[in-house]
Amino acid sequence: MEYDLIDKIASIAKTSYDPSVIKGIGDDCAVVRPSSGKALALTTDTLVENVHFDLSYFSPYYLGRKTAACNLSDLAAVGAKPKWALLNLAVPPGLAEDFWLVFSKGLFSWFQEWGVTLVGGDTVSSPERLVLGLTLAGEVAPDKWLKRDGARPGDLIFCSGYLGESACGLALLKQKLVSTARTGKKVWQRLIHRHLNPEPRLDLGAALSESGLVTSCIDLSDGLATDLAHVCKASGVQATVYAHQIPVSRALRTACRALGHDPLRLATSGGEDFELLWTSPGEHTRAIQKIAGNLGLRAFCIGKISEGTGVWLKGSFGSREITLQGFEHKM
Amino acid sequence: MEYDLIDKIASIAKTSYDPSVIKGIGDDCAVVRPSSGKALALTTDTLVENVHFDLSYFSPYYLGRKTAACNLSDLAAVGAKPKWALLNLAVPPGLAEDFWLVFSKGLFSWFQEWGVTLVGGDTVSSPERLVLGLTLAGEVAPDKWLKRDGARPGDLIFCSGYLGESACGLALLKQKLVSTARTGKKVWQRLIHRHLNPEPRLDLGAALSESGLVTSCIDLSDGLATDLAHVCKASGVQATVYAHQIPVSRALRTACRALGHDPLRLATSGGEDFELLWTSPGEHTRAIQKIAGNLGLRAFCIGKISEGTGVWLKGSFGSREITLQGFEHKM
Repeated sequence: MEYDLIDKIASIAKTSYDPSVIKGIGDDCAVVRPSSGKALALTTDTLVENVHFDLSYFSPYYLGRKTAACNLSDLAAVGAKPKWALLNLAVPPGLAEDFWLVFSKGLFSWFQEWGVTLVGGDTVSSPERLVLGLTLAGEVAPDKWLKRDGARPGDLIFCSGYLGESACGLALLKQKLVSTARTGKKVWQRLIHRHLNPEPRLDLGAALSESGLVTSCIDLSDGLATDLAHVCKASGVQATVYAHQIPVSRALRTACRALGHDPLRLATSGGEDFELLWTSPGEHTRAIQKIAGNLGLRAFCIGKISEGTGVWLKGSFGSREITLQGFEHKM
Repeated sequence: MEYDLIDKIASIAKTSYDPSVIKGIGDDCAVVRPSSGKALALTTDTLVENVHFDLSYFSPYYLGRKTAACNLSDLAAVGAKPKWALLNLAVPPGLAEDFWLVFSKGLFSWFQEWGVTLVGGDTVSSPERLVLGLTLAGEVAPDKWLKRDGARPGDLIFCSGYLGESACGLALLKQKLVSTARTGKKVWQRLIHRHLNPEPRLDLGAALSESGLVTSCIDLSDGLATDLAHVCKASGVQATVYAHQIPVSRALRTACRALGHDPLRLATSGGEDFELLWTSPGEHTRAIQKIAGNLGLRAFCIGKISEGTGVWLKGSFGSREITLQGFEHKM
């Protein structure tokens, strides 16, 4: 393994001493000590330049943050506490000299907030483009982790925030509308930030896991229709989402007017909001809302689970199936 | 995460039921149960097409085997037992239809031999070339894992097999000498096999770890000079290697004559033999040789550790420093 760059990156972190790390970077393997009685949650994601991100609008700092956030969000979705990270860098020629310094600051801004230690990785050369791989290991109670396959008929469907904003931010960035500010700078900035700087809902995932009130959970990375379809397929149930209950922000409506987009379409099919989506029996609604409220979040009830298959959207237009009309990463 | 291809690949594995896997592929994270009292060893490696391998001479089957073997070798070097794997595939257009089927058979041939379960991963599109990432988690006794930084003056240096053969096999493949067989087909095949089909020394790593007789260990991925230099730097010691004690096979000598290469140079700087290199106090030599012998291997004593810095090669030519004259992956 080539440690030079990974080592340099790790040296930038001002992480505090982590007693669970027996050996970090600098041997054939990292050696860490799992907490007794906990299960290990493992997740990995790869981001390819010009497939998942574009350096023309992603600064190295926000790219570092987003690399961390995408993976952390997967741990949030099972209710795990993040612990250790491995970073794989396939590095093209021609990156700015301070690229990795600034990228690392972004990456570690999330790692430090959540107590994650970078314990290993590798660096290889990539002739054409940057490829970023991050693997995270976290810990969760083996009997309390949040799974996809537990949704039951009668459950209500919740999400933790406004949907479609990240996809709208991406559309603004692609159309280079960032600085035109026709409808007010704050609106653009909010939406663009939601794309460049998503927030993993780790506290919420942990609290929902701890509560024992949740029957299934997933993070919204590919869009409501696609991710809810995963839950339905895994659980063997049908989901009905009520259009008027989907949280659509005023910012999204305003920007969609300027862009000629349909806010409801973005909210149901736009990816990368990284909110949590979960199901819970109706009698726990007040408790669920209190859990979210205690964390400064809201639990929006957007629909219900029934017997059947697929994801259905109900509105003034009637009812239509929206299963798997997801966000595509391809640019 | 996109599970389709990873899911397909996992379905090819005929792994037996693994009670440590609470949830494998098909949720936001894999959830596994670590063994009580064990430390976790984590390692990750990336292989880039035309940087680390070439599909003109790597069949998908051997590419799958080598992807597994490189990573398993890192676990062998710390003495860990492999358990769980995550696979990251960046897939270019135009691969043969059965590429992943055959690749998977190669990958799982090692996974099945060592009881590894593929529990997750992701698939992304890669415009130009194949990028393979594999992350392995294994288990090892927290007080017995083999580290790089424990070599002490007076220790002897051992390796587990003939060196330079993989690099020579690569040279044969690059010069398309595979089928000319000027010096006998068996010689070519042995060397080429060492490059295409290396064997991770997991049993040996585990036995050395268990023995408590070993002060440092590393796997020979970048070549004797470079890997031994890592041990010396981490341990703050000097290594002297005796040229006439380095295991150089007759096959290597024969092929080197045909290629016009220096067998000693290949044996000291050629990478990817994936033998283990370790140090141990001299009084344990017979015990060490017995451990290797019980596994059908040999422990070649190739030098000794002293106070100082760097790696030195001693021979009829005198003594010269060979620190970090390693194998370069660049093609």
